Amino acid sequence: MQRIMNNPDDIVDEMLKGFLKAHSDIVEGTENPRVVKAKNIPEGKVGVVTGGGSGHKPAFIGYVGENMCDAAAVGEICSSPTAAAFLDGFKVADQGKGVACLYGNYSGDNMNVKMAVKMAKRQGITVKTVVANDDVASAPKDQREKRRGVAGEVLMWKVGGAKAAKGGSLDEVIAAAQKAIDNTRSVGIGLTPCTLPAVGHPNFEIKDGTMEVGIGHHGEPGIEVCELEDAHHMAKRMVDIVLPDYPFVEGDEVVVLVSGLGATPVMELYVLYDEIDQLLKEKGIKTHKAYVGNYFTSLEMMGATLTIMKLDDELKELIDMPAKSMGLKQ
Amino acid sequence: MQRIMNNPDDIVDEMLKGFLKAHSDIVEGTENPRVVKAKNIPEGKVGVVTGGGSGHKPAFIGYVGENMCDAAAVGEICSSPTAAAFLDGFKVADQGKGVACLYGNYSGDNMNVKMAVKMAKRQGITVKTVVANDDVASAPKDQREKRRGVAGEVLMWKVGGAKAAKGGSLDEVIAAAQKAIDNTRSVGIGLTPCTLPAVGHPNFEIKDGTMEVGIGHHGEPGIEVCELEDAHHMAKRMVDIVLPDYPFVEGDEVVVLVSGLGATPVMELYVLYDEIDQLLKEKGIKTHKAYVGNYFTSLEMMGATLTIMKLDDELKELIDMPAKSMGLKQ
Repeated sequence: MQRIMNNPDDIVDEMLKGFLKAHSDIVEGTENPRVVKAKNIPEGKVGVVTGGGSGHKPAFIGYVGENMCDAAAVGEICSSPTAAAFLDGFKVADQGKGVACLYGNYSGDNMNVKMAVKMAKRQGITVKTVVANDDVASAPKDQREKRRGVAGEVLMWKVGGAKAAKGGSLDEVIAAAQKAIDNTRSVGIGLTPCTLPAVGHPNFEIKDGTMEVGIGHHGEPGIEVCELEDAHHMAKRMVDIVLPDYPFVEGDEVVVLVSGLGATPVMELYVLYDEIDQLLKEKGIKTHKAYVGNYFTSLEMMGATLTIMKLDDELKELIDMPAKSMGLKQ
Repeated sequence: MQRIMNNPDDIVDEMLKGFLKAHSDIVEGTENPRVVKAKNIPEGKVGVVTGGGSGHKPAFIGYVGENMCDAAAVGEICSSPTAAAFLDGFKVADQGKGVACLYGNYSGDNMNVKMAVKMAKRQGITVKTVVANDDVASAPKDQREKRRGVAGEVLMWKVGGAKAAKGGSLDEVIAAAQKAIDNTRSVGIGLTPCTLPAVGHPNFEIKDGTMEVGIGHHGEPGIEVCELEDAHHMAKRMVDIVLPDYPFVEGDEVVVLVSGLGATPVMELYVLYDEIDQLLKEKGIKTHKAYVGNYFTSLEMMGATLTIMKLDDELKELIDMPAKSMGLKQ
C-alpha cells in the first residue's frame, strides 16, 4: 500500500488540518473538529448542510463555500459522520430560518441524520432533509428509495446552495434540491478497487481486463461484470443505463457531470466525455453545461461516473450561479 | 491496463475534443488541432504561450485562460509538441506586442521552441522565452541549466499570465516569469510508476514499500530510492531538499504548492501539506498562499511534489490576481 500518511487512525483528522489551512479563504473549523463551515456565511439565509464519510474528495467538505453548503459533517473513511457531528453542523449553519440537510442515501447517514434532526428540533432548530438517490444501478426504478446517492449530490448541493443564497425559504430550498435530485440519474463503472488505509488491502476485486458496471463508491456490487470495453462502448453503456431511467428524451436540456473515481487520469475522462457528448447529440439532448473532472471519488479507485440532470428554468438559473468552494468554482 | 480509451494512438486528439467541449467558456480550438487558445483574449496585450507533452493534466492546456496563458501547444503523451504547434501557438497569441513562451526544460521542448522562435522571427513575431528549471533533484545547484521544469511551472504561468494581463511589456512579462521560476524550487517523491497507454506496461519500477525521492514527471530517476516513510518524514525529506537549495530562510514569505502525481488520493495531499506547513512554521517561513491538489500530474503515478516560491511585492500581487482556467480558478 503506497500511501502518504502517518498513523492510519489519524488520517481524517490530519487531512482536515491540512484542508483548513490550505483553504482558509473559503472554510474554517468549528468547535467540533469533525464539522467544517464556510467562512463568512451571509446573514439571514437558510442553512445548507451535508456530510458523509471521508475518502471521496472533493466530497463532502470540498463543497462547503460561497453559494454552496454552509457546513459539512465529516466521518471516518467510507463511514457516516456521527449524529453529534450532523447536529453541530446544523447549529453552525442555522440562523433561525432553518436548515436544509442534503445528503446521500446510505444507512449510516440516514440513521445519524434522523437522530440529529430530532435533537435539533428539541433545541429549536428546524431541519428538513433531501436524500440523494441518483445511482440507477443500485436498485430498480420502482424501488428508488433504496438507491444510493452518488455524484448527483454535487448538483443537488449546487442547486440547494444557490437557492439558499438567493434568499429562498427552507421549503423553497428543500423543493429545489429535491427537484435537482429527482431530475438526476447516475451510473458508475469501476476499473480497479481501492484500499482503506487502515485495512491495507483492497476489500473487493476487479480483475484486470474486466470492468464492473454500476459499482458503488464503496465497492458496492454493480449490476454486471464484463470485459473491459473501449471508451466508445463504455460511454454507450452508461448512456443506455442513465437515459431510459428518468427518461431523458429529445429536446431535453441537461447538465452532464463526468467524474473520475480517483486514479483514472483526467485525460481519459475527457475521452469518455467526448463519446458521451456525441451520443447525447445523436439523441437530440442538449448539454447546457458540463463538469468533467474528479468531483466525487473513492480514494484510488479507477473508473468513472456519469451523471445527467434535466434542467428547467429554475434549475438552469441555480446551476449557472457563481460558486466558490474547493471542489467547485465558477 | 485498466484505462478508458479507444485506440491509444487517438487518445490525445480525443481528449482535446472532450476538453474543448467541456470548457467552451474558457478555451477554444484553433486551425491547428494541437493548439488550444483562450477564449476572448483581451486586446493589445503581450501573448503568453506554453506547451508540453500530454498526460500531465491540468498541465498544460488546463492553464490556458483568463490572466493565465493565452495558448498552449499540445504534444503526444510525455512527448514535446512539434515546432509547428509552438509556432501556431505564437501566432494565435501575438497581437504585435510579442509573445512570452514559458515552458519546461526538456530536450524536445527546448529544440522545438528554439525552431519555432526562429520561424516566428521570420514572420515578424518577437518571441522571448523562460525555461522552467525548478526541480532541485534533477541536477546539482551549479548546473541549474540542466534541471527539469516541474510543478513550479504553474506558478511561472500564473505570474507571467498576470503580468501580461496587467499590460506589462514583453520584457516585463519575461522578467516577472523569470523571477518567478528563479525564486522557485521543487522536489517530487514517486510511490508507483505509470503506464503509457500505447505501451501497456510501466516503463519504470517503484517497488512496493519503497519510494523514489526526486523522481521526474516521466519517471526520470531520482536521487535516492528508500523505504516508504510516513507523511511526517516524507514532508521533512522534501522540505530539507527544497529549502537549502534556494535557500529559503526565516522571515521569507512564500507560496507553497503540493501537487499529487495523479493517483494519490487528495486527502493524503492534505496530510502531507499539514506536515509541510508545520515544518515551515518551525523555521519561521510564512506561507502567504497554498495550493494543494492535482496541479501537475503524470497519468496514474502515485506520489506528490512540493514546490515553494519566495515572494516579493510584485510576485505577491501577481499571484493574488484572479485567474480563470480549468486547472486554476481564483
